[in-house]
Amino acid sequence: MTEPGLERARILDAGDPLAEFRERFLVPEGVIYLDGNSLGCLPKATPPRMEQVVREQWGRDLIRSWNTAGWVDWPARIGARIAPLIGAQPQEVIACDSTSVNLFKLIAAALGMRPGRKVVLSEPGNFPTDLYMIDGLEKQGLAERRLAPRERLAEALDDDVALLLLTHAHYKTGELFDMAELTRAAHEAGALVLWDLSHSGGALPVDLGGCGADFAVGCGYKYLNGGPGAPAYAFVAERHLSAAQQPLTGWFGHTAPFAFSDDYEAAPGIEKLLCGTPPILGLAALEVGVDLIAEIGVDRLYAKSQALSEFFRQCLSERGVELDLVSPADPAQRGSQLSFRHPEAYAICQALIARGVIGDFRDPDILRFGFAPAYLRFEDIAEAARHLAEVIDTGEWQHAEFRERAAVT
Amino acid sequence: MTEPGLERARILDAGDPLAEFRERFLVPEGVIYLDGNSLGCLPKATPPRMEQVVREQWGRDLIRSWNTAGWVDWPARIGARIAPLIGAQPQEVIACDSTSVNLFKLIAAALGMRPGRKVVLSEPGNFPTDLYMIDGLEKQGLAERRLAPRERLAEALDDDVALLLLTHAHYKTGELFDMAELTRAAHEAGALVLWDLSHSGGALPVDLGGCGADFAVGCGYKYLNGGPGAPAYAFVAERHLSAAQQPLTGWFGHTAPFAFSDDYEAAPGIEKLLCGTPPILGLAALEVGVDLIAEIGVDRLYAKSQALSEFFRQCLSERGVELDLVSPADPAQRGSQLSFRHPEAYAICQALIARGVIGDFRDPDILRFGFAPAYLRFEDIAEAARHLAEVIDTGEWQHAEFRERAAVT
Repeated sequence: MTEPGLERARILDAGDPLAEFRERFLVPEGVIYLDGNSLGCLPKATPPRMEQVVREQWGRDLIRSWNTAGWVDWPARIGARIAPLIGAQPQEVIACDSTSVNLFKLIAAALGMRPGRKVVLSEPGNFPTDLYMIDGLEKQGLAERRLAPRERLAEALDDDVALLLLTHAHYKTGELFDMAELTRAAHEAGALVLWDLSHSGGALPVDLGGCGADFAVGCGYKYLNGGPGAPAYAFVAERHLSAAQQPLTGWFGHTAPFAFSDDYEAAPGIEKLLCGTPPILGLAALEVGVDLIAEIGVDRLYAKSQALSEFFRQCLSERGVELDLVSPADPAQRGSQLSFRHPEAYAICQALIARGVIGDFRDPDILRFGFAPAYLRFEDIAEAARHLAEVIDTGEWQHAEFRERAAVT
Repeated sequence: MTEPGLERARILDAGDPLAEFRERFLVPEGVIYLDGNSLGCLPKATPPRMEQVVREQWGRDLIRSWNTAGWVDWPARIGARIAPLIGAQPQEVIACDSTSVNLFKLIAAALGMRPGRKVVLSEPGNFPTDLYMIDGLEKQGLAERRLAPRERLAEALDDDVALLLLTHAHYKTGELFDMAELTRAAHEAGALVLWDLSHSGGALPVDLGGCGADFAVGCGYKYLNGGPGAPAYAFVAERHLSAAQQPLTGWFGHTAPFAFSDDYEAAPGIEKLLCGTPPILGLAALEVGVDLIAEIGVDRLYAKSQALSEFFRQCLSERGVELDLVSPADPAQRGSQLSFRHPEAYAICQALIARGVIGDFRDPDILRFGFAPAYLRFEDIAEAARHLAEVIDTGEWQHAEFRERAAVT
């Protein structure tokens, strides 16, 4: 006998215009993967692409590939492909370094453009690395970190604020900031804005250009499916490209890297954000992921992820599972995730993993489920809800092996 | 009829204890690769390792690999394997980011440990990114760059110098600094020392510990064969691990990254040099290269590279090729390379490449040949000398196609 949730799921899957794309990813057998917002799945096109880059471009063509394979242009080329996903122009985005390193560059650039102001404003509980990179500049004596809860951000935007640094979709709750409204408020206060798109870029429509955003960074290994520790990306609005100066002035950001001059002169365009030699293997994998997400289209992805998460809530509700939702109940107010608070979140997460349902735990009591719509079926969602209901109903999370805390969760 | 140089080469190859290791690399057919000091050859073990990491660790095990495959420890694990190649202890080295980014971290750390001193001393003509990263801190108002030619470095070491930053083997000429002597001189002046090992680590014996060096960085894609844009490495002497504070305070450098706290607290050990999420694909390739170089052994590699470069000079001399050697004539004074000055260096380099002999050109007039001894035979050297002699004798470098300057060389 088919369960009712499952039956509805199959009908939804049959009508899903994105259903075909699941075949483009390697989704392991026996796994329901609700953690694509932590590490995206492997596109099937990635291993052959890696093989080609490793064996042919590196192994056979060696140093010549900087020219013949165009390695030297990959950061800008991949940046240009990310651009339409986030409402940017091709010449405003570059793929390089990590999100953290790119945060440092752009926080410093913003401080340099607002002399006399030192405050970088963010919210408590923002993703840690965003706050920590402000700390780094604070210890250098160049910045002053100020945190205000989101409902008091507007009033914290005073004359001392050089930069407002926020994460568009909150990593724990998925709650979205109103990018247009906060950008406007920051500009009105004379401050610049840096958006961290790690949990929104590639998952939902982002319109940096339309919002008048100044700077942005984002992650390559979540919704862009670029692989573990993939290169990140950075955005600088075209109007700031000449004024923005970042302190990680490595040779690849030089206007003429191969002139080998003693003095640094920044490239005029977005390449000024480069620092060291680009990580070619990581960029190769990132490009495959970006191209696939661009092919599917962010609007369609977002619509499906909203449908998936609403269906998950519905299935849980029908099973009588009562969990404390910490994500906004309105899908228009959140990214592609749902988070619930439960005192035994860690043990429940472990018990689910033992059943092949991979979600995420976030300290201290958050169960986080990501709905990466490129490779998830409604059937997966119905099944995940059933497993979660069973784990809670049976109390199996109480088993000792699920309650031991590992170093990384 | 065999040429005499070639005959001698074959005898040398027959007695070469490292001959067997050539088979461990993919060396393309028809290529004599004298540019391993720019991008090292591909170890044959790398493609299957990449395939495993991509398909199994990323594709199949997904997020769990941070624990099960130990991804979280790779930077320190690979650092520990690099350590014996450079005379360091395992807990003093970590693999991460680019050489440029690591320079920034360690220059800043040194400045923080010498309050009241702002000068970072280096030499003109040092590898550009070393100088540029000082520029970046200078523009932040935190450093003052001072350059002195190598024969005047000692006298430039005054009370204002916080840090002496030098490249152990010069990228153009291969000339070695006396690491022990300059470290001693810097310490006597109250300064710290940061050695860039990009052109020596993995190529020749380096004894950071024996020299009392404070900091070092090095490149993963040259003599370590880690692939294009491989992660770099950074060294902090154990005695400085607690005092050294670097400003790129990303979440992976936190003492408890997965506690997700709002405030940064640096890890106590070498992990404090980490910033963003480690680039797993790049680290996987790097580890294969490092393990292979460690297996062969730096002492043997250096002995063979000296023999190769001396044999090259001998072959050129026997063919009557007179070139202006800019590398030290004494092999003990240079790294694994030979550089020659010639007004037509660029065109000669291009003509050689057309014959399958890949050397390197460095602006404005340097022909640079690297002797990566893990995969080069004496036969290759004899042949390279013959090609170079023929290119010069025939004047074929004068053909138009060799004289056009490309963007990257």
